[in-house]
Amino acid sequence: MGRRYDTISFLSDYGTDDEFVGVVHSVVRSIAPHAHVVDITHGIAAHDVRAGGLALARSAGYLCPGVVLAVVDPGVGTDRRAVAVEVGDGESVLVGPDNGLLAPAVAMVGGAGRAVSLTGTAWHLPAPGPTFDGRDVFAPVAAHLATGVDLAELGDLIQPAGLLPGVLPVAAVESDGLHAEVLWVDRFGNVQLNVDPTELDSLGAGDRFRLRVADRVLPARRVSAYDDVPTGGLGVLVDSWGLVSLVAARASAAVDLAIGEGGSVVLMAADPDEGVNTRVTIGGRSAADEPEGT
Amino acid sequence: MGRRYDTISFLSDYGTDDEFVGVVHSVVRSIAPHAHVVDITHGIAAHDVRAGGLALARSAGYLCPGVVLAVVDPGVGTDRRAVAVEVGDGESVLVGPDNGLLAPAVAMVGGAGRAVSLTGTAWHLPAPGPTFDGRDVFAPVAAHLATGVDLAELGDLIQPAGLLPGVLPVAAVESDGLHAEVLWVDRFGNVQLNVDPTELDSLGAGDRFRLRVADRVLPARRVSAYDDVPTGGLGVLVDSWGLVSLVAARASAAVDLAIGEGGSVVLMAADPDEGVNTRVTIGGRSAADEPEGT
Amino acid sequence: MGRRYDTISFLSDYGTDDEFVGVVHSVVRSIAPHAHVVDITHGIAAHDVRAGGLALARSAGYLCPGVVLAVVDPGVGTDRRAVAVEVGDGESVLVGPDNGLLAPAVAMVGGAGRAVSLTGTAWHLPAPGPTFDGRDVFAPVAAHLATGVDLAELGDLIQPAGLLPGVLPVAAVESDGLHAEVLWVDRFGNVQLNVDPTELDSLGAGDRFRLRVADRVLPARRVSAYDDVPTGGLGVLVDSWGLVSLVAARASAAVDLAIGEGGSVVLMAADPDEGVNTRVTIGGRSAADEPEGT
Repeated sequence: MGRRYDTISFLSDYGTDDEFVGVVHSVVRSIAPHAHVVDITHGIAAHDVRAGGLALARSAGYLCPGVVLAVVDPGVGTDRRAVAVEVGDGESVLVGPDNGLLAPAVAMVGGAGRAVSLTGTAWHLPAPGPTFDGRDVFAPVAAHLATGVDLAELGDLIQPAGLLPGVLPVAAVESDGLHAEVLWVDRFGNVQLNVDPTELDSLGAGDRFRLRVADRVLPARRVSAYDDVPTGGLGVLVDSWGLVSLVAARASAAVDLAIGEGGSVVLMAADPDEGVNTRVTIGGRSAADEPEGT
Repeated sequence: MGRRYDTISFLSDYGTDDEFVGVVHSVVRSIAPHAHVVDITHGIAAHDVRAGGLALARSAGYLCPGVVLAVVDPGVGTDRRAVAVEVGDGESVLVGPDNGLLAPAVAMVGGAGRAVSLTGTAWHLPAPGPTFDGRDVFAPVAAHLATGVDLAELGDLIQPAGLLPGVLPVAAVESDGLHAEVLWVDRFGNVQLNVDPTELDSLGAGDRFRLRVADRVLPARRVSAYDDVPTGGLGVLVDSWGLVSLVAARASAAVDLAIGEGGSVVLMAADPDEGVNTRVTIGGRSAADEPEGT
Repeated sequence: MGRRYDTISFLSDYGTDDEFVGVVHSVVRSIAPHAHVVDITHGIAAHDVRAGGLALARSAGYLCPGVVLAVVDPGVGTDRRAVAVEVGDGESVLVGPDNGLLAPAVAMVGGAGRAVSLTGTAWHLPAPGPTFDGRDVFAPVAAHLATGVDLAELGDLIQPAGLLPGVLPVAAVESDGLHAEVLWVDRFGNVQLNVDPTELDSLGAGDRFRLRVADRVLPARRVSAYDDVPTGGLGVLVDSWGLVSLVAARASAAVDLAIGEGGSVVLMAADPDEGVNTRVTIGGRSAADEPEGT
């Protein structure tokens, strides 16, 4: 017997309009009634392995030790592997498809220990069809792990180095600024970038920036709260995951920027005197002098 | 005293934007703190008794023994009956309105044992108004059942044969093919039909089919995984509930077919030589010989 | 040590598409594994403090004694206070931002006892950024309260009278009728007004009303069930919270009235003979005599 676990943290792209999530809970409870299932989220966009991997990585540091059940699995029914991966010297085990979904979280918590391909069908449910491995493979495996079945009993041990990696974009400093990519747009429209605060410092921008998105260049200022952003403006904020986010005050920065996950942003230092005495000249007159609406 | 139950499985059309679900959980917990509530789904379309009944039936084989609380109840406040129905020799009890919602699941697990009309108002909450029986009638009754109150104490015993049946459509073989109806479109756009795989075999279609939906006829092939469907094509798959579904690869078959729940599909065998050496002649030349893009 | 609590009721505007709710659950469980978290709802519109406060007030009478964790917090990161407020002689404690969110529920259950500003950062999580107090401040404080930490240990005691009140609109009788405001539109399109049934009686309207919404005047009748409303018509119903709601039969009254939360409605008595022998004359003929479709 292996270690017992009393928490199963569960993430998927199942949504909650169908009964998928409830059925997985039921299967887990029928095998491991002592285990508590924490739903991380089931709102990952359908088939969006990258978004699921990022949500899992953002959560990883806060999850209770135990089993992590993660299912975003467009390749279900094909020969993609189903796997279980130990982390933290067995403190937790991640269960899911070997399609890169688990990789960012595994990296986040120190890398993989033992890993197994879930070939032991005796631990699965008999299935009328091959499309719901969440119910028929991953849920029963997660539950059996929780009851103390050792990882090695669940299938064939595999090389952790052979697990499919998650590929995350890296921001790049180029002559015209820091080229970044949008990792996440949250419910409130905050736009998280693949930018570490130290990269921001390298721009020498102080507290004032320009953002280039598609054909537009927009000013932004560094803030430490949403409500510090001037109405209608944009803020650059070190967010609660330690990354740089573009934000607005009680509004959606993503809508204001017309940008979504995977989109490109270039961050630049503001012109030295911008925001102090910026003047835009239109037809020989200063725009700052124009009354609104003309 | 009757049997005690430690699981209450809960399905409704309440959605999760309002606090209905949370209040039902609170009422259950205040009466039966030992019971664990598993949310099957609350995303049933508002008032859609048929969809709720089908979701419950799809789940039935996987639910933990215990109380099943199901509320899709457009007739709340009228003289429609509120009922509790035993199944599996009392292993589980379904609680909800007598409007056909419970019927498919009851049939699925072997039919009704004892049934009762929930006329015992002493087991209900006092209610300021008559529109939230989930909170005021069904939740407290489900919780009292979980604590061991016997079904017969909750109201008047009724004839199980008198419960409102759920009416499900049956597919029909006609001269032009198998006339089927869409039972369910899931989050991923998979289209479940009221077709048993054996009915499919009766078409003598082998692995290649034609589907008629409204005015269009589209080819489809039998697959055993979503990703086996050619990009842009359609698959015919025996799904994880043992029924026939129309599917696409990382795309919505429902969108591709412009079809929803209750819609009609005719399945036919493909023309014998289709997909082998099909040629479409355009202006005297074979389209198969045309380079792409001309 | 203070009282221990075994239920934490949790309401927010986090939605469920992101992992916010799951992470809060995880943080609570890591500190107070004995506590059960009941999700009231996370579907409050983003930043809508008033809607969150109303949902909490509607729930208040049904929640289990314990900790109530409520987060709708557009001002996170600014100097708005984070607070914990005892009610019911310590039977429950509400935890959240001091922005009016908690006020309606506190008033509903008899007013505030002790209150504290959550300045004791030792009870918080270290945070990479200042935008997710749900995770970093409110969840750990709620969990520590559940484990028996006394309110007074969590920060500085403050005057309950100094908590930000929730401002709710009051209906007003004017010469042309009862001027009401929409408090809530639920998932089914029912329109709850800030009207007590006794105010309705003061109209002397009996069972028949006229509603003025924007430029339209529509008839409505008093009903006690949705299905008692004639198809296409409107009902006036004393709802399950003891307030007056405008409703339709298996349809959305909010859509029919083209009205949303915060909208205005004037309720009037129907003309005395309305609904008895109303006739509309079109071109000299009675519309009631017209065959359908002409």
